[in-house]
Amino acid sequence: MPFADRLNNVETSAIRELFKLLGKPGIISFAGGFPDSAMFDVEGIKEAVNAALAQDPGAALQYGATEGYNPLREQLAAFMAGKGVKDLAPEGLIVTTGSQQALDLIGKTLIGPGDKVIVEAPTFLATIQCFRLYGADVISAPIDANGVQTDVLEKLIAEHKPKFVYLIPTFGNPSGTLLGLERRKKVLELAIKYQTLIVEDDPYGDLYFNEAPPPSILALSSQVPGSRDWLAHCGTMSKVLSPGLRVGWMVAPPELLAKATMCKQFSDAHTSTFAQATAAQYLKAGRMPATLAHVRKVYAERAQAMGNALRKDLGDAIEFVQPQGGLFVWARLTGAGGKVKDGNELARRAIEKGVAFVPGAPFYANNPDLSTLRLSFATADVAKIEEGIGRLGQAI
Amino acid sequence: MPFADRLNNVETSAIRELFKLLGKPGIISFAGGFPDSAMFDVEGIKEAVNAALAQDPGAALQYGATEGYNPLREQLAAFMAGKGVKDLAPEGLIVTTGSQQALDLIGKTLIGPGDKVIVEAPTFLATIQCFRLYGADVISAPIDANGVQTDVLEKLIAEHKPKFVYLIPTFGNPSGTLLGLERRKKVLELAIKYQTLIVEDDPYGDLYFNEAPPPSILALSSQVPGSRDWLAHCGTMSKVLSPGLRVGWMVAPPELLAKATMCKQFSDAHTSTFAQATAAQYLKAGRMPATLAHVRKVYAERAQAMGNALRKDLGDAIEFVQPQGGLFVWARLTGAGGKVKDGNELARRAIEKGVAFVPGAPFYANNPDLSTLRLSFATADVAKIEEGIGRLGQAI
Repeated sequence: MPFADRLNNVETSAIRELFKLLGKPGIISFAGGFPDSAMFDVEGIKEAVNAALAQDPGAALQYGATEGYNPLREQLAAFMAGKGVKDLAPEGLIVTTGSQQALDLIGKTLIGPGDKVIVEAPTFLATIQCFRLYGADVISAPIDANGVQTDVLEKLIAEHKPKFVYLIPTFGNPSGTLLGLERRKKVLELAIKYQTLIVEDDPYGDLYFNEAPPPSILALSSQVPGSRDWLAHCGTMSKVLSPGLRVGWMVAPPELLAKATMCKQFSDAHTSTFAQATAAQYLKAGRMPATLAHVRKVYAERAQAMGNALRKDLGDAIEFVQPQGGLFVWARLTGAGGKVKDGNELARRAIEKGVAFVPGAPFYANNPDLSTLRLSFATADVAKIEEGIGRLGQAI
Repeated sequence: MPFADRLNNVETSAIRELFKLLGKPGIISFAGGFPDSAMFDVEGIKEAVNAALAQDPGAALQYGATEGYNPLREQLAAFMAGKGVKDLAPEGLIVTTGSQQALDLIGKTLIGPGDKVIVEAPTFLATIQCFRLYGADVISAPIDANGVQTDVLEKLIAEHKPKFVYLIPTFGNPSGTLLGLERRKKVLELAIKYQTLIVEDDPYGDLYFNEAPPPSILALSSQVPGSRDWLAHCGTMSKVLSPGLRVGWMVAPPELLAKATMCKQFSDAHTSTFAQATAAQYLKAGRMPATLAHVRKVYAERAQAMGNALRKDLGDAIEFVQPQGGLFVWARLTGAGGKVKDGNELARRAIEKGVAFVPGAPFYANNPDLSTLRLSFATADVAKIEEGIGRLGQAI
């Protein structure tokens, strides 16, 4: 069967091959990118879905508008207002089937074969593949401990004139990095100066451990007149409430939002109204602040435990910045004392010792740094984290 | 903002413009394409979601495999076995976000700019737009009272060498037509002879009124050796259980299924596990046969009432085949006695009289028959149907 040419631009993820090994009994996994199921507010979600089915079953079970279920759009606008986005009307966002679909709709509406797109190096693997499937030529902008290097980013924008720049500025996957306040403003200025769309993906911004991170680029846009015309923002319920709902959303300038809605009509008609009505009832019930406080506390303890264990058991063999939020430690093998310096090699040895993580190379669109690795602290408790990092120490 | 060229191939639906008029108070609408909310088995769905959240909340709320939630795949394979598809393993299907997403994935995996695709004239509007968005050149094959004319279809396949042929053989939208048994077999033979993929879309096959329709093309494929290699089949829970769940599925040859799964990974990662686990529990609870018996009975009464009223109130102004299943009456204005012969013109007059339907022209990919119209009998009760058709008689 002759498939479309666009499939030649992507490959099945190398990570998937690794995941097949995770079934080994007794393995401790830091490889996942998902939240801990044990922390889902099952009781709250149960109340929410029963309220939705009691109050307006017709709406929860019938076809709905492609733009999203209005009571949810209202709740999401209020949720965003609580995070400093003061001027967002419910009509200013559409509901998407997870934020993955928001990325897909951005690709579908904007990317033609050969179009340039700039992403961070490293960035979310599924984003790279998603954009390449529409024919994007993906360019990488380097990051440091304060996120994307905006001076280099400006040169790349000027040189490549990309369709858009995709950033995960807050505790990004996989880097865990936090883009500084001044750089956030600089990004908005670049958007205007070069009339280039910025796509801010923000799945992790709510998962901070101590002080809150700087406002999102979307929240800051009110301070940079005109920047909102060049800004899209993707949010999701997946990391704080439940990935299984597949409820995300996208804020974008009206014309882009209209085109994305048209494309969504032919992608899946609309996001599950059953899930949307449940999410709307959940937010309306006011349970989110307590849920957030709980997950922040647990992930903070686990992040601290993993950092401590890495310093204790791996010493100078790796270097990393202690994360202030999100789900991941991003580390680099130093090769000190002749120890292993290749993330893929260490991943193989680690599996033998009964611990798994994801090597960092696939997170680079170009020129992978083979010495990197991503460790998730989200799904193992403190004792398992200490045991697992101990095994990693043996593997190294 | 410069959008991708693919957007030039589609337009916002003409029907959407008409739908804006439906808010008029007191209007009786035959325009929708959806089932009646009043017939949803709310109690059964409530029990199903509560069972899902009680038995395995982690699975129902966590990320899941792109291919679908395994307990649902097993239930769907059993559901299909009950409809004569005896040899379908759970791994032979993937779960999609409504069958609309199955169509999108078929487009994404197979269609490149300029590729030919054959559809029925008329066919489901969102299919035409979905395929055009990937650059398809959509060719129309004519239908008669027994569905697609397979002799003409063969000539079109030989001439155009399409990527695939898309059919809704059972009570198709909008035509309501039933493809005869011999023609179904002929389609399978054409698939093999020309090595051309057939896509069978089957949202309405369960909604028959008296005797069951012929087996689906998928069920018949076991009688035509080799045909299964050239056959995809799309199913959905939307018309019989709830569109709001957004649970559909696709059966396809292994290589196509694998490519579609890869594309789905970047479209929405997976379909809502919350909705999938609910659908799985619903099917497991054994409530579907009673639900189907109920909706068949109610829709049969409404279809009969609409047919009777049309014959009584519109007489020789229209001609139509009394539907044996599905949701729609497809009719043609005859122009007899100098009465209105244009569907768009009648739609405008009908709105003024307080009744709405969809003119048939947008359902044609090419050369629309302007005298056609689609009337849904699904959402109005018998009294409303009689009142509404009475108003239509006045409009004509």
